[in-house]
Amino acid sequence: MSPSQVAHRTLPVARRTLKLTIAYDGTPFVGWQRQARGASIQGLIEDALRPIEGGPVAVHGAGRTDAGVHALGQVASFNFTASIEPARLRRALNTILPFEVRVLDAEEMPGDFHARFSAKGKVYEYRIDDASIASPFLRRYTWHVTPALDVDAMEVAAGALRGTHDFAAFQGSRTNVHSTERTIHRLEWSRGPGPRDPLVMEVEGNGFLRHMVRNIAGTLVGIGHGKWPPGEIDRILASRERAKAGATAPPQGLFLKRVLY
Amino acid sequence: MSPSQVAHRTLPVARRTLKLTIAYDGTPFVGWQRQARGASIQGLIEDALRPIEGGPVAVHGAGRTDAGVHALGQVASFNFTASIEPARLRRALNTILPFEVRVLDAEEMPGDFHARFSAKGKVYEYRIDDASIASPFLRRYTWHVTPALDVDAMEVAAGALRGTHDFAAFQGSRTNVHSTERTIHRLEWSRGPGPRDPLVMEVEGNGFLRHMVRNIAGTLVGIGHGKWPPGEIDRILASRERAKAGATAPPQGLFLKRVLY
Repeated sequence: MSPSQVAHRTLPVARRTLKLTIAYDGTPFVGWQRQARGASIQGLIEDALRPIEGGPVAVHGAGRTDAGVHALGQVASFNFTASIEPARLRRALNTILPFEVRVLDAEEMPGDFHARFSAKGKVYEYRIDDASIASPFLRRYTWHVTPALDVDAMEVAAGALRGTHDFAAFQGSRTNVHSTERTIHRLEWSRGPGPRDPLVMEVEGNGFLRHMVRNIAGTLVGIGHGKWPPGEIDRILASRERAKAGATAPPQGLFLKRVLY
Repeated sequence: MSPSQVAHRTLPVARRTLKLTIAYDGTPFVGWQRQARGASIQGLIEDALRPIEGGPVAVHGAGRTDAGVHALGQVASFNFTASIEPARLRRALNTILPFEVRVLDAEEMPGDFHARFSAKGKVYEYRIDDASIASPFLRRYTWHVTPALDVDAMEVAAGALRGTHDFAAFQGSRTNVHSTERTIHRLEWSRGPGPRDPLVMEVEGNGFLRHMVRNIAGTLVGIGHGKWPPGEIDRILASRERAKAGATAPPQGLFLKRVLY
């Protein structure tokens, strides 16, 4: 430790709370959360902050994205004592971090802000490449699905998922939550104007169970392939049984788009 | 060799000419052309065709894209004796090739068709990410350029390049062509409707010198940054000196979009 750091750490220091908005390409990572092996986004950010703080920093993400899942606007918060300005901190982090992780914004927050506990909701996108031949440029960022989908049927089924429901049938295993009730405020399928734009499911809710967005996407694709009629979605919800719903859509189609506060 | 292959190869066989339309993500490759070391697109396709033909196949590309350059519609041709139908050949190749290379189409052609010598022109795109913070999702497919560009000045300069000119000033080194005159039929800057869509230069011409599109993109970015006024492009063209033009834009922003016959 340098003399200036010793002096700094023996004085009473102001405890700050900072918020980061982060985009990442999840392809090369083990997921948001730090693991014993492999590069995680949380681990990279904590490691980048450590020399700036002159000590360990615990970074909390709004959601723990799985391996291969991407983010357009993940949010993280942490307590900090170093006096660096937010805009300079953002630039410093983007210099240290690999290009797959970009800090889009850094903001000073009130002391009670917490990326996860303060969140009121989240917006996810699930992207599907439904062209007969998979685009090499979309392969890391979509689920390639053939044959052609009945998007009208998927839209009808999506309507039954909007609102407040017990989503136990769409919950992944290895979870331990006290309630499986969640509210979906918005759930829409759309496609951009480009000839090769993917089919996108955008879903906004007050919270999501583990694998819930991917299980919804997998089930709606099953409906789009005529495996079930659109009305089956009500029976799947009512069953509360994971086995009744469709397959878990693969991680690379999923994007955490925005966290709502 | 199996008995059926021996029988096949001792009979007089029909010599076919086939045309492939190919998309590829150039990131992991040494370029189109087969090299002593590293994976090339030409090499992968030749290697994939060999067991189908039961012998070596020489594949000719319309253009030799450099390492890291992408294709939305590269065209290749080859002579072949195996009797496999074009649609089945396309599916077989897509099963063998890595996902970064996709055969979009396979067609039977007249015997005098040659991907390179029959081409009447080509269309390229050069894509630029001009947002202040580079998108992790565009990093492999754009040139990230800051500070903000004066796109109007770049449009004006682009106008001076349209038509028939001696493009010697925009020619890369290590070339040996008998004429440096080329015709640019179209050269336009545009941007898609999405909030994070890149800035795109689309250029159509009867032929392109080595590095010509990347040297044009680099020079127009210099003009967009105020390094030169738009009118400087006429003096650069007239000079016929590579040193007068701007830097060669990096390969990952370049896409061979279409070959014209």
